[in-house]
Amino acid sequence: MSIDRLQDQIRKLKNPTVAGLDPRPEYIPAEIMNRHIAEKGETLAAAADAYYEFNCGLIDALCDIVPAVKPQSAYYELLGPDGIFALKRTIDYAKDRGLYVILDGKRNDIGSTAEAYSQAYLGAVTIGATTHIPFGCDSLTVNAYLGADGIEPFLKVCVAEDKSIFALVKTSNASSVQLQDLICGDRQLYIAVGDLMARISRDTIGASGFSRAGAVVGATYPSDIRKLRARLPHTFFLVPGYGAQGGSAEDVAPAFNQYGHGAVINASRSILCAWQKDGGDYRQAARAEALRMREALRRAVTIV
Amino acid sequence: MSIDRLQDQIRKLKNPTVAGLDPRPEYIPAEIMNRHIAEKGETLAAAADAYYEFNCGLIDALCDIVPAVKPQSAYYELLGPDGIFALKRTIDYAKDRGLYVILDGKRNDIGSTAEAYSQAYLGAVTIGATTHIPFGCDSLTVNAYLGADGIEPFLKVCVAEDKSIFALVKTSNASSVQLQDLICGDRQLYIAVGDLMARISRDTIGASGFSRAGAVVGATYPSDIRKLRARLPHTFFLVPGYGAQGGSAEDVAPAFNQYGHGAVINASRSILCAWQKDGGDYRQAARAEALRMREALRRAVTIV
Repeated sequence: MSIDRLQDQIRKLKNPTVAGLDPRPEYIPAEIMNRHIAEKGETLAAAADAYYEFNCGLIDALCDIVPAVKPQSAYYELLGPDGIFALKRTIDYAKDRGLYVILDGKRNDIGSTAEAYSQAYLGAVTIGATTHIPFGCDSLTVNAYLGADGIEPFLKVCVAEDKSIFALVKTSNASSVQLQDLICGDRQLYIAVGDLMARISRDTIGASGFSRAGAVVGATYPSDIRKLRARLPHTFFLVPGYGAQGGSAEDVAPAFNQYGHGAVINASRSILCAWQKDGGDYRQAARAEALRMREALRRAVTIV
Repeated sequence: MSIDRLQDQIRKLKNPTVAGLDPRPEYIPAEIMNRHIAEKGETLAAAADAYYEFNCGLIDALCDIVPAVKPQSAYYELLGPDGIFALKRTIDYAKDRGLYVILDGKRNDIGSTAEAYSQAYLGAVTIGATTHIPFGCDSLTVNAYLGADGIEPFLKVCVAEDKSIFALVKTSNASSVQLQDLICGDRQLYIAVGDLMARISRDTIGASGFSRAGAVVGATYPSDIRKLRARLPHTFFLVPGYGAQGGSAEDVAPAFNQYGHGAVINASRSILCAWQKDGGDYRQAARAEALRMREALRRAVTIV
């Protein structure tokens, strides 16, 4: 099962890291960007080709030490259709290298529209008698504000296609408290969202003990992580906010259960942009930073 | 100002309708789909070309009676990069025909990622020394679950580029009650979201009296619409759920203020698929249905 595969790969590599693939023009070494601009001009297509080359280098440098990658859709959408093509190629390349691919799109809608999003990213579409897999990710982040009938179409495709989703529960930003921490009866809103997700996914729990509906829980709120871990034993956590946003290995340790299972920690800028701090080749710098992060996480969490 | 332009166009046409452009293979007349499949095979590119042709026909048939269109991003994403290219071409065509284009993407994220989404859909991106407009919509729907710092990057681009956004406040689906109606202190969550959006956009109110941050408020909850209209006098409402989802002209009438201003009512399937019920040319059927909807809205609301 999809989440079991992610958990197994984390245990095999003893590394609960997901590397964000969040390219921006200023993150790409000038040599790469300039070469593509020389070929295609200062176009969105040139930038998209540069993103793809950059991503492939990162994937090659990380795929034997990191179990998963998380492309952030916004950065590819910013380059229009060419950017989406680079995203599609990046997903394919990462999967070929054995990585678990979580697309960070925070999609949300109802009924047939939610179905279209889930088919796009996790499923298939049929034109005439021919079936196409538009993106073929392993997992997609979603936003649960619309309630169960905004989530169930995604879960249905997850079951049919052996995929997973991660719903925003408690996000890492400062103003996540404004709505997510509102007290609704006997619990905060983010707890209500976590409970709702656990309830509607309780029939999808795999051998690892975790369901197909994970939760996004920010590294910047360690006490909320601890509370959620105790309350939602079958929910796998995707934890952003490590590194550049301020979360430490100690901050994220409560995301794991007593066996060191049930969470994957995201780092984006700290890995992608390591070359800007350390100098040298961006791939070697990214790998060195990913190894530092792995060591920090191993000190804070023992994965059985 | 962007929302003033939408309100002016509604007053000029005496029609507060936004037509959804939500293509699915089964909505497209067989003649169109088969012709593109004959040319490009049963590919995503063929379906994308068929979507674009279908949309152009609809836009031509509607542009002198309807002020705005709302493409639903999910249906284009389902066709991968080719679908996104069809979306981009659809946006361009609709703008050329004078329509106000609201992209329904329900995007949401924080910091630099929210900035990337807003630049993608409402702003521009610079590659080398060349500036590109990736999509160039007039407006984008967003999801406010992350709080103010997930919305402010969008508002900043709205001000810089003269655009608008619509945040999900109360959605039209049955299970919107599960989270959106939770009582948080002295008000429901959807009221708290509406209040938050009104507060952070209060410096963006234009001549029409409405701010750059509108609200999505479902036609299926008329008493909630009435409550929100009274509470949020400067918030423009985008109202889905009319027609196929069950909302009537009487249900949506409370979305308008005493001058018949401040709301636009969405219909998608009832217009797009009118040809399946009425027979004949899909463009004529769509126009006839849009005229019926206009008459129903005119009976329920007097636009001063």
